[in-house]
Amino acid sequence: MKIAVLGGDGFVGWPTVLHLSDQGHEVHIIDNLSRRWIDTELGVQSLTPMDSIQERCRIWYELTGRRLGFHLIDVAKDYDLLRNWLAEHKPDAVIHFAEQRAAPYSMKSDRHKNYTVNNNTSATHNLLVALTETGIDAHLVHLGTMGVYGYSSVGAAIPEGYLDIEIEDLQGEKKGLEVLYPTKPGSVYHMTKSLDQIMFQFYAQNDGLRITDLHQGIVWGTHTEQTRRHEQLINRFDYDGDYGTVLNRFLIQAAIDYPLTVHGTGGQTRAFIHLQDCVRCIAIALENAPKAGDRVKIFNQMTETHRVIDLANMISKMTGAEIAFVPNPRKEAVENDLIVKNDQFLALGLDPITLADGLLSEVVDVAKKYAHRIDRKRVPATSAWTKDIAARVETDPEGKRLKSVS
Amino acid sequence: MKIAVLGGDGFVGWPTVLHLSDQGHEVHIIDNLSRRWIDTELGVQSLTPMDSIQERCRIWYELTGRRLGFHLIDVAKDYDLLRNWLAEHKPDAVIHFAEQRAAPYSMKSDRHKNYTVNNNTSATHNLLVALTETGIDAHLVHLGTMGVYGYSSVGAAIPEGYLDIEIEDLQGEKKGLEVLYPTKPGSVYHMTKSLDQIMFQFYAQNDGLRITDLHQGIVWGTHTEQTRRHEQLINRFDYDGDYGTVLNRFLIQAAIDYPLTVHGTGGQTRAFIHLQDCVRCIAIALENAPKAGDRVKIFNQMTETHRVIDLANMISKMTGAEIAFVPNPRKEAVENDLIVKNDQFLALGLDPITLADGLLSEVVDVAKKYAHRIDRKRVPATSAWTKDIAARVETDPEGKRLKSVS
Repeated sequence: MKIAVLGGDGFVGWPTVLHLSDQGHEVHIIDNLSRRWIDTELGVQSLTPMDSIQERCRIWYELTGRRLGFHLIDVAKDYDLLRNWLAEHKPDAVIHFAEQRAAPYSMKSDRHKNYTVNNNTSATHNLLVALTETGIDAHLVHLGTMGVYGYSSVGAAIPEGYLDIEIEDLQGEKKGLEVLYPTKPGSVYHMTKSLDQIMFQFYAQNDGLRITDLHQGIVWGTHTEQTRRHEQLINRFDYDGDYGTVLNRFLIQAAIDYPLTVHGTGGQTRAFIHLQDCVRCIAIALENAPKAGDRVKIFNQMTETHRVIDLANMISKMTGAEIAFVPNPRKEAVENDLIVKNDQFLALGLDPITLADGLLSEVVDVAKKYAHRIDRKRVPATSAWTKDIAARVETDPEGKRLKSVS
Repeated sequence: MKIAVLGGDGFVGWPTVLHLSDQGHEVHIIDNLSRRWIDTELGVQSLTPMDSIQERCRIWYELTGRRLGFHLIDVAKDYDLLRNWLAEHKPDAVIHFAEQRAAPYSMKSDRHKNYTVNNNTSATHNLLVALTETGIDAHLVHLGTMGVYGYSSVGAAIPEGYLDIEIEDLQGEKKGLEVLYPTKPGSVYHMTKSLDQIMFQFYAQNDGLRITDLHQGIVWGTHTEQTRRHEQLINRFDYDGDYGTVLNRFLIQAAIDYPLTVHGTGGQTRAFIHLQDCVRCIAIALENAPKAGDRVKIFNQMTETHRVIDLANMISKMTGAEIAFVPNPRKEAVENDLIVKNDQFLALGLDPITLADGLLSEVVDVAKKYAHRIDRKRVPATSAWTKDIAARVETDPEGKRLKSVS
């Protein structure tokens, strides 16, 4: 297949590119490199030393003899460039990662909220319109998030995208109806993925676009089979308060003898998936494309759920790190259950890597190996979800008066 | 109250401004005048001769002694201007009409699709962020549309925004859950109103914004009590294929002896409301604001439903006009039932103007009076919903080979 990967320089984008190239596909990266600019804005850098995209592509070619295309296009701003590129290259599939993907970043300020909405909405819509306009019938695979559903839910298992409900018809009789599972996003970032879902539904119905939406859990892990092959192919690893996900931040805290900062009680339950499984899921989704006229195909792309406090305890046991409870900067339920259906990927052959299996190698191969590159100041999460919460967190900031408990 | 009307120069915006000013409120119009630019783009003009917004405001002041503020701000592009204006003026309420509001215009081309999504999404989100950022606690009243629900529904009465469903919890027990009534927008324009709804939900929940969303039917009628007071206060009347709604276009066709062009069978059922009732509903909504922390308050703002063919027959009887069936440029069900709940406005005292009462005066006072200003070329609807439909309509364009039947 010829595959375009929008956002192919990013955290999941890059290992996806390598995985698909390794499978023999012709892969083109389309990226505006905005994630690198955001590193500059925030004054942070990947824990792992990361080369330029051009250099990464060169190394991959030297190792494998496989070419990767790189095209500097801002999908959100350069509609004409995107459309013309698609019309010229006619990819069989387009994988869409080209969105701002950190919830805390999306909540930092009014400017960051607007940027996230404008960037993500325009990127997705430009792509949908360009696919419609060129008529190339490429399968669109989008990275969504489990987070669209919120976590303060009623405690029902989250199905894969759709829900069968009953409504009363005009004669007062019960009738079945399939609807998109209702979303309740918890941040501006998550909200944009909920907006994406509405746009996908429209373009699948109106123009017959073939779309798969992957509702992904929190990704952990750094390496895939391909990124391990050369030091300069290494993936990025974010540990800062905006882009670092909970597990990465615990690993880093453990590596530098900083207490593991648990927000609130740590009773929040989240869904997780290893990076290696992500790229496998994407490859599986590519092989199982919907037909024109089909509804949007939605997969839950996650493999296990854990409470935050249990993750902290697991890492504490492995490393001896202390645990500290700090005020939660997010507006969310203190505790929640979470059960997620992922039957589709399991049926299609996914054999998950579990945290129990893979976590220790992350501690040793990544966190400890690169501990000398950690900037302690960047570890606390400082983006507060509301003005009230900002005022509360301000009086008890992380890293200053940590209430250590273990 | 001090009230800002975003889009106060538009079709419903202007009569709303006059109605509220007449009630004694301090009213400020914020508008980028984009609707006037679109007239220029399309080479069309309002049937009724319409003055500049500055002149309209001057006349109103001369007649009533009441000042209207006018502020040229592009809400979608000038976030900083909007935020600073709100911080300085601290309105008690903001009425948000500042969106591209024609479904056919939104489907004309890739450029029009992108413009509609970028403009409408950014306008709404900029406003939500500016309200959050300034903390002025103004009541936001938004003009939405019944069209978010689509018209090929299962034939259930459309409730006012929310639906109670049952889901199974983790113990397998049925549990009640209130969700937003599922949307199924039929055009890019309608889709943007569905996106708005998600954004409203988020900002009401996360930041306690007080929001009312009015899901409006198709507006008919030209005059309100205030616009009748002076020839230069007259409202706009659109009859072209993009901005003219079905009833306006029938009226104009009748006035110039052009057959009433019914798309498809005319079995499409739509919800309607008179312009005078719109502005009354908005005033009622203002007096019944939600409290901080409340869910978004959603009203269905319509008063009666009709099949398109029945409207054509009604006008045909009044005027002797012929009816012609032409291919439907929209992708929609051939026929549909539609029952809409509007109990909330009725309970709050709305006494609807019916088509049966008001239609004749539209024929005489508006369509016939200004018939000399009609450009026949602009009457057919030419925006097709999909490329397939465009090809079909192309071979049987309206106004060329009309299949007249009466």
